[in-house]
Amino acid sequence: MLTEQDIRSLQAVLGEGKVFVDHETLEKYSSDMGGFCRKPSAVVKAFSVEDVSKVLRYCNQRRIPVTAWGAGSSLTGAVVTDNLILDLSNMDRILKIDTVNYYVHAEAGVVLDRLNKELERYGFFFPPDPASSFICTVGGAVAEGAGGLRCVKYGTVKDWVLAVKVVLASGEAVVFGEPLAKNRAGYNLAQLFVGSEGTLGVIVEVWLKIAPLPDARLRRIYAVFDDWRDAGNTIIEIRQKRIVPRMLEFFDRVGVEAANKFHGTNLHVGEAMLLIDIEEFTGKELEKLVSVLKHNNARVIRVAENEEEAEMLLQTRASMYLAIRATAKTVLVEDVCVPIDRILDYLEKVKQLSQKHGLTISMNGHAGDGNIHPVIFYDPENPDEVARAEKTVEVLVQFAIEVGGTVTGEHGVGLQKMDGLVKQLAAHNGIQTLYLMQKLKKVFDPNNILNPGKYIDVPWKSSESTSEHPTQDSGSSDPTAR
Amino acid sequence: MLTEQDIRSLQAVLGEGKVFVDHETLEKYSSDMGGFCRKPSAVVKAFSVEDVSKVLRYCNQRRIPVTAWGAGSSLTGAVVTDNLILDLSNMDRILKIDTVNYYVHAEAGVVLDRLNKELERYGFFFPPDPASSFICTVGGAVAEGAGGLRCVKYGTVKDWVLAVKVVLASGEAVVFGEPLAKNRAGYNLAQLFVGSEGTLGVIVEVWLKIAPLPDARLRRIYAVFDDWRDAGNTIIEIRQKRIVPRMLEFFDRVGVEAANKFHGTNLHVGEAMLLIDIEEFTGKELEKLVSVLKHNNARVIRVAENEEEAEMLLQTRASMYLAIRATAKTVLVEDVCVPIDRILDYLEKVKQLSQKHGLTISMNGHAGDGNIHPVIFYDPENPDEVARAEKTVEVLVQFAIEVGGTVTGEHGVGLQKMDGLVKQLAAHNGIQTLYLMQKLKKVFDPNNILNPGKYIDVPWKSSESTSEHPTQDSGSSDPTAR
Repeated sequence: MLTEQDIRSLQAVLGEGKVFVDHETLEKYSSDMGGFCRKPSAVVKAFSVEDVSKVLRYCNQRRIPVTAWGAGSSLTGAVVTDNLILDLSNMDRILKIDTVNYYVHAEAGVVLDRLNKELERYGFFFPPDPASSFICTVGGAVAEGAGGLRCVKYGTVKDWVLAVKVVLASGEAVVFGEPLAKNRAGYNLAQLFVGSEGTLGVIVEVWLKIAPLPDARLRRIYAVFDDWRDAGNTIIEIRQKRIVPRMLEFFDRVGVEAANKFHGTNLHVGEAMLLIDIEEFTGKELEKLVSVLKHNNARVIRVAENEEEAEMLLQTRASMYLAIRATAKTVLVEDVCVPIDRILDYLEKVKQLSQKHGLTISMNGHAGDGNIHPVIFYDPENPDEVARAEKTVEVLVQFAIEVGGTVTGEHGVGLQKMDGLVKQLAAHNGIQTLYLMQKLKKVFDPNNILNPGKYIDVPWKSSESTSEHPTQDSGSSDPTAR
Repeated sequence: MLTEQDIRSLQAVLGEGKVFVDHETLEKYSSDMGGFCRKPSAVVKAFSVEDVSKVLRYCNQRRIPVTAWGAGSSLTGAVVTDNLILDLSNMDRILKIDTVNYYVHAEAGVVLDRLNKELERYGFFFPPDPASSFICTVGGAVAEGAGGLRCVKYGTVKDWVLAVKVVLASGEAVVFGEPLAKNRAGYNLAQLFVGSEGTLGVIVEVWLKIAPLPDARLRRIYAVFDDWRDAGNTIIEIRQKRIVPRMLEFFDRVGVEAANKFHGTNLHVGEAMLLIDIEEFTGKELEKLVSVLKHNNARVIRVAENEEEAEMLLQTRASMYLAIRATAKTVLVEDVCVPIDRILDYLEKVKQLSQKHGLTISMNGHAGDGNIHPVIFYDPENPDEVARAEKTVEVLVQFAIEVGGTVTGEHGVGLQKMDGLVKQLAAHNGIQTLYLMQKLKKVFDPNNILNPGKYIDVPWKSSESTSEHPTQDSGSSDPTAR
């Protein structure tokens, strides 16, 4: 799609040092952290809102697809393309930290950990903490609607976005939302951009809520169970007892053994482990939690005694994916999420699938949200194993939908979950909701230049409609003609 | 628009006892709590989703405007119409209280206080608490995106909506969102309906997040200041000191004197008062707050000693609007909201306007959010006074926009703030955002039957466009032709 003339035109429009077509650069942008690969035709590095406007204006006229890029930490293929990559990582200024109105205003390319380091100086923090926070950008985290470990208490990124500055497909820059504690002026379009995965506009600046760093003493508990059902029941009982932990993570034998090897540690290992952060105000919170753990047969209940121990336990969890990757040829990370009261059925289903298909599946993740990630080991050079891994994912996705869960809790749709999304919307929401999303997309991006071919960009199937009375549309009647 | 044939047809479609055109019924639905008046042509009472579908299907075919009604507690004219009222208050079942997944599933007509009473039995609550909670419905609270006293800590309704079941203009029922702690499947359309004011679809069911009732001891403090600047500075210092109160309300002499008269109480009166709820965990929270109050010259610092006293103080605030109404012929309630660090300028501006225009203006409201409501006293039979009151509002709206605030913090747009909305979007967001909202509306409601003539339903003015490069739209080019 991108001609040599286009490259020259973009260079002329943007000036020196912003348009790249050399092999080395294109290679760098050829895969995401989930292993999805596509080699772009060109990479443009934007240094200002004006740069982004110029690129989109040109590409919109020429119908050239554009995919925004922050750090490439997507796990679903959302940021790979064989067309044009628009890299925003150089737009990395923190524009304002407002300690009265409790927000931070930043350019899209600011790395999340850097943001939090800066906020800490003022006694504040931005709670959502995806595992990629050391590298991921705030623009990417918003476009992706990211989650993380602390989300069990604080919610995900969507709960912390006040406003976004967006360059529309036309090249015009607008702001959705207001950096205010309260605002009811107009539809909540800022939230439409949270999790829009680069399909509605390019997010160039964000206004994020921030919170005072909590005063309470944090206790970190590592609990070991010999039966995974006990760990599952603990999660449910914690919820029923209305204990609100700041972190509630699950992992299994495979995960801890990999972590012990990776870090040279010697953590207790059982069939299932929980890592729990609890805030201590009255001194009774820890007691209450420990009683739930004992009641559910925890064999080891280790309360971190100092900062170092607490940090070591956190690192065990935070780097578990890397530790597992170091022991396995290839893994596939799943992101289904189930209602929390169905977590035992979910764990059991994964056990069954693991046995049936002869695959190692390690379970680790955000138990307090029902979002435990299965990590499926497979050999990509063994076609039979690849097929069994894919079948496992298919069954898991179907299972999540059947129990009222979602095909993606925090990683998003991208290329990976396009089929699952359609199935979920058809089963839970009415397939009409998909068509409405496609029509909204068309309002924002009439020429379909923004990250096309992903997410909701699937053909209409009129037979999928569950309704005898489809929504009447006074506009164009053939939505596939995009 | 509504013919006698339409009434007969609707009666035939819906069956007995659901369609009303008698004088008494129409009168009941002829005004909202803000005093906006329009007499409907007919009232339909829906008892099921199917009823709502039938009404919308018929009205969409016949292009009859439909305005959804919960309790009529809008303050902005959002629920009055001279066409058809669709009353959802009989759809009032609480369908599920989920104490593991922390949500409540309810029909739109459930009254908010009833919901909270039911939740309390399980040890949970729904935090947003608009002053109308004794009468307002959850459907209305979501459609309006309501606020309240506790929102300074917990956020507004938008922060607590997981999913909505909506009947589209076509009559089809769909669900946006999922009742899950985490979900990234598709655009966040549930949030598009929060604050949609009945213009995108009719909300018939909601899934709302709930929270465990807090354990902490609540301390309620009533502070009296002889200079309103001291009260304003207290608000700012509370934020800077990272104290997070559960309530932070401001009121003035006029308000407390009205309340004392109304309740027969004898509360201390000064130039400005703050009512503050603070959660006590360590015992130091109260101390910290009192030190801020003293530092800002509070003359009286009264800490409620028991439940009765705390409740009396809360009632003073909660019923202040009624108390004021009892002393005045007519009042006009404003809802502008400013950045919290501009609260002194805001209070000063109101003082100036009060003097300049010779009007009594009482200030009371959600200081911790920058959302203090001016209550403007005027005589509706005095045209000159009406003009001065209107001028005051106009200047206030302009002021709020200039200091980076919003024309509506929590009451919404309805009929009242249509001009202000356009001004705010043009000044802060780019007028293109208004046109995008109008296009989105058209996707959901191509025939413009859902609560037309309000909110974003204003004509395009191409001269308002701030851009040299307006968004290109491949669709119909004349958006005013609705």
